[in-house]
Amino acid sequence: MNSINNKLVIVGVGNVGTAVLNTALSFGFASEIALIDIDNDKARGEALDSSHTTPCTYSVNVDIHEGNYEDCKDANVIIIAAGPSILKDDKNDDRTVLAERNVKVMKDVMGSISKYTKDAIIIIITNPLDTMVYYAENFFGYPKEKVFGTGTSLDSARFRKIIANRYNLDPKDVHGYMFGEHGNTAFPVWSHLNVEGVSADELDKFFPHDKPLDKEEIASDVVKVAYDVLHLKGCTNSGVAMAACRIARAVFMDEHSILPVSTTLEGEYGLKNVALSLPCIIGKNGVERRLEVSLTDEENDKLYNSAKNILATMKAAGLIEDK
Amino acid sequence: MNSINNKLVIVGVGNVGTAVLNTALSFGFASEIALIDIDNDKARGEALDSSHTTPCTYSVNVDIHEGNYEDCKDANVIIIAAGPSILKDDKNDDRTVLAERNVKVMKDVMGSISKYTKDAIIIIITNPLDTMVYYAENFFGYPKEKVFGTGTSLDSARFRKIIANRYNLDPKDVHGYMFGEHGNTAFPVWSHLNVEGVSADELDKFFPHDKPLDKEEIASDVVKVAYDVLHLKGCTNSGVAMAACRIARAVFMDEHSILPVSTTLEGEYGLKNVALSLPCIIGKNGVERRLEVSLTDEENDKLYNSAKNILATMKAAGLIEDK
Amino acid sequence: MNSINNKLVIVGVGNVGTAVLNTALSFGFASEIALIDIDNDKARGEALDSSHTTPCTYSVNVDIHEGNYEDCKDANVIIIAAGPSILKDDKNDDRTVLAERNVKVMKDVMGSISKYTKDAIIIIITNPLDTMVYYAENFFGYPKEKVFGTGTSLDSARFRKIIANRYNLDPKDVHGYMFGEHGNTAFPVWSHLNVEGVSADELDKFFPHDKPLDKEEIASDVVKVAYDVLHLKGCTNSGVAMAACRIARAVFMDEHSILPVSTTLEGEYGLKNVALSLPCIIGKNGVERRLEVSLTDEENDKLYNSAKNILATMKAAGLIEDK
Amino acid sequence: MNSINNKLVIVGVGNVGTAVLNTALSFGFASEIALIDIDNDKARGEALDSSHTTPCTYSVNVDIHEGNYEDCKDANVIIIAAGPSILKDDKNDDRTVLAERNVKVMKDVMGSISKYTKDAIIIIITNPLDTMVYYAENFFGYPKEKVFGTGTSLDSARFRKIIANRYNLDPKDVHGYMFGEHGNTAFPVWSHLNVEGVSADELDKFFPHDKPLDKEEIASDVVKVAYDVLHLKGCTNSGVAMAACRIARAVFMDEHSILPVSTTLEGEYGLKNVALSLPCIIGKNGVERRLEVSLTDEENDKLYNSAKNILATMKAAGLIEDK
Repeated sequence: MNSINNKLVIVGVGNVGTAVLNTALSFGFASEIALIDIDNDKARGEALDSSHTTPCTYSVNVDIHEGNYEDCKDANVIIIAAGPSILKDDKNDDRTVLAERNVKVMKDVMGSISKYTKDAIIIIITNPLDTMVYYAENFFGYPKEKVFGTGTSLDSARFRKIIANRYNLDPKDVHGYMFGEHGNTAFPVWSHLNVEGVSADELDKFFPHDKPLDKEEIASDVVKVAYDVLHLKGCTNSGVAMAACRIARAVFMDEHSILPVSTTLEGEYGLKNVALSLPCIIGKNGVERRLEVSLTDEENDKLYNSAKNILATMKAAGLIEDK
Repeated sequence: MNSINNKLVIVGVGNVGTAVLNTALSFGFASEIALIDIDNDKARGEALDSSHTTPCTYSVNVDIHEGNYEDCKDANVIIIAAGPSILKDDKNDDRTVLAERNVKVMKDVMGSISKYTKDAIIIIITNPLDTMVYYAENFFGYPKEKVFGTGTSLDSARFRKIIANRYNLDPKDVHGYMFGEHGNTAFPVWSHLNVEGVSADELDKFFPHDKPLDKEEIASDVVKVAYDVLHLKGCTNSGVAMAACRIARAVFMDEHSILPVSTTLEGEYGLKNVALSLPCIIGKNGVERRLEVSLTDEENDKLYNSAKNILATMKAAGLIEDK
Repeated sequence: MNSINNKLVIVGVGNVGTAVLNTALSFGFASEIALIDIDNDKARGEALDSSHTTPCTYSVNVDIHEGNYEDCKDANVIIIAAGPSILKDDKNDDRTVLAERNVKVMKDVMGSISKYTKDAIIIIITNPLDTMVYYAENFFGYPKEKVFGTGTSLDSARFRKIIANRYNLDPKDVHGYMFGEHGNTAFPVWSHLNVEGVSADELDKFFPHDKPLDKEEIASDVVKVAYDVLHLKGCTNSGVAMAACRIARAVFMDEHSILPVSTTLEGEYGLKNVALSLPCIIGKNGVERRLEVSLTDEENDKLYNSAKNILATMKAAGLIEDK
Repeated sequence: MNSINNKLVIVGVGNVGTAVLNTALSFGFASEIALIDIDNDKARGEALDSSHTTPCTYSVNVDIHEGNYEDCKDANVIIIAAGPSILKDDKNDDRTVLAERNVKVMKDVMGSISKYTKDAIIIIITNPLDTMVYYAENFFGYPKEKVFGTGTSLDSARFRKIIANRYNLDPKDVHGYMFGEHGNTAFPVWSHLNVEGVSADELDKFFPHDKPLDKEEIASDVVKVAYDVLHLKGCTNSGVAMAACRIARAVFMDEHSILPVSTTLEGEYGLKNVALSLPCIIGKNGVERRLEVSLTDEENDKLYNSAKNILATMKAAGLIEDK
């Protein structure tokens, strides 16, 4: 049977899940979108409101509805945006608190999904992202390659946009990425930054700019801009929704695209039992391959530091034991 | 000089303005989008977050930034989503309170825009919509055909979707509209409902359905669903953002599309000095023509009733004198 | 298994099939497109050339390749554009000659497809369209609802565009269709023409125009414009490719859209054993329902006349016996 | 006056110009497209056929019509696809013969355009591309930055696709380009090839493949595939149409995108008075900047060789004197 099925399930329709819904509609890869939320009213409200976009002459007639975990049965892709995406109080322990809280959320979500499918590709947005990915990938018997997180897709987009802004360029021509944790310890892989043949160290030579490139400043700006958005608008959602949907399109269209997503490493850079982001090939079967690209010593150090931070969060969340 | 310019300004980036921003980005008609809000931080935050979508391989490199009214100088289209779109307390007088409040908002907005341009096409979303349209169109010396409101574009989308749901059809094939006020007294023009050749009275005959068509019930459902969305998700924005952007595309692409938008009547159905929605031809110059389509006596009565309600709101808002 | 699969097969990559390929790529519904042609070099050349569009930043990474009938095994949609779409010599007997010739083509094509699948939705473009549809639907044991023809989708688009041109309107707002044969005896169903609430007889009243509406003239213009295109550019392909791909999108996205396509009637208007076009609901399972919309006596007469012509072609092609 | 204007003129609507038309329609950047051809019937036929796609619910209402050079007056972008794009006889002198022939074509085209505008951005596809670009840029008093050629945009797309095919990757992730002449002496700049952080020499290490990377073989395959397409399908048009329209979008949307296009060098790599392709920043004003990226000695040699070949063609075409 070659029956056509392009079904997306979004778990969690707060600010992020709702943005995912709208971006997914504009991408047009799904013919059915089910929304699951502990607040079923919210899911129903978002489904209703979005459904009022479908009569527009330019819109696909997508079947958008609130749902429950049974909807995962025939889902092709599930995007998990449940739980708060970031805690607004910027105290030292926020990641820990968030981790503990969202481990519970994820336990419920992954447990419920697993009852109905082991086939769907699961894309996680819930923070602290890498801890959530590690948990989802390793504690529910779900096929590992089918679960991963948006990871530094968003951090990388921000990095590329910041570079593009400095030199007034199309950010699509800035090729590069952030590695490691999605969040505070993510770092730009300057050694692979490539603006259509121009390397990081040549940028100032090739493009007009206001002030010299300061790599540390930019690295810190990428992390900082997340907080800027958060404080300025009260949440961050448009950027990450695009990151998630771009990945989802790579899955629905089996694109074999290389995107920086978070998965549990299996020896890459000497690391395992920790999930973090590096470029991976994404197709209809999920993560087809992880690319252990060369890093400079400095970048390696930053990677280990980032892994250490993720491990600390994982410990705090009770996912691994203190040794 | 045939210089290329596709600039959109969005005034007000609350829930609605933000949704307009994201829908506009997905439509891809603008190369520059400026966001104006009394809370400049909010505008900056939304611009920043959205700008992080542009590195995606599928995104146009749109220049998105917070702005001020000077940005209207070279704008082609301005969408006004300032002011609360609806008051959540459902008391008898809410429209009046909202009207008074948003007349002040609109005074500031239209006054500021008018300083910089009389060329841009202005699409109003601010509620109470028809009162705002009347005010904006008639008190600022702005060319009348260049200012109008989304009006019953949204109500019509809901009407079409509700019909489509009943019969499991593509809502794009349900041709029809709501007339009159955007809001409580809007009514379906059943006499012109047309589902690819099937009229309202034939729907039950042609398409499987659960229960017989009850026109009153559907008319009331269309109005009610606005409140459903509002109460279920806390605001309504996705639907109206699509309505506004579909109209904006008709302007940017000079489509000559027929859309139910709100304008000040000039004798149609014997009415003038009141703004309400009926189908209009929209192109790059704004409203090119209003279509005074035939109405049944019952529909005519509903139109007058709707006009009466709008006039009451206008009076309450101090736009016209009590006679 | 909820494995993702969005595969299109195009049989015949002459002018029409190639246009279908390019339109399908722009629609983005397929992740794999296989091209089958008796001239395998042509298929390979078109696949190669089109594949060079996929590195563009805005393009989906579609797997485009020349193929053979085995590719139908896991196809979701098959579009048949094999055989000349129209004979250029405008003699009396051309349809007959074309019919005889393309029955042979279709025998080979449908015979070969049937070996590999009875699941894929088959959309036929090959002319004489209705004869080909009748043959494909009734002689190969293929599930009837899964085989149909673009029919008067194209004629209807032309009709709507001609009306739109006269009144300077967006043709998307001109709702209506041509019935009957795809080709010379197709006729506009004036009684259901609806321009957002304006009927055929009111058009001149509502919209500026150069000369009064002459229904006969327009009906004949719709048929004539096919020959105009043919003689002016040497073939007709862009329009029909859009018609076919719009239908294909309704299938891939399960849109339940109403489109005028050609199927074998089963008693509608008292007709059976003849394929012709009337509005049908199209979804992922193919034709879900035929809509026997009301016709005026004059339209009924034209329908019978059209059916008679199709039957004559069918006879000439040896599909039915002379009685 | 901020009047909206998004007008594209296509000069020459043979196989290439027609493909440009259809790709432009799918991109949706133009609200008006005028077609100019010495065979006005052909232009009219293509305009008519394409106009029959606009009633489709998903299509923008673009005003497509045959035109004449007066249409250039308010054009924003002009794409020149006049003249045969390649001569099918593969004799030694074909480029020379083609050059002579198309210099005459270009003289007429550029002369006619220049009468009506010096504002529109002109994108040239006509072959031999670099010779045509040099001629158009330097002999008609047209602002230099506003005239350029698709150049190795197409060769680069082929290069990227061939690499992507070898390793089963999304070609959008293969960043790199061909330099020099559009055609036989174009060469891959291997030193800047970058597959999301993987360099040319690491490809075999990172991605499964059938046989080791042979750079010479691939370089020659990129050139050869043009002839393959030509011989297999009789022309090449889909790929180059995408290249031209992707550039046009960068102009219409003022994207500041970096694309390998052909312009007259002004000292880059020690070369001037010859047009060839290297990465350039493209925005609404045309070519904003040429990027003289670093080349290896070997690549430099190939560049000089390519320039030599282009100069030979220019001489043969009588554009420069023999010294």
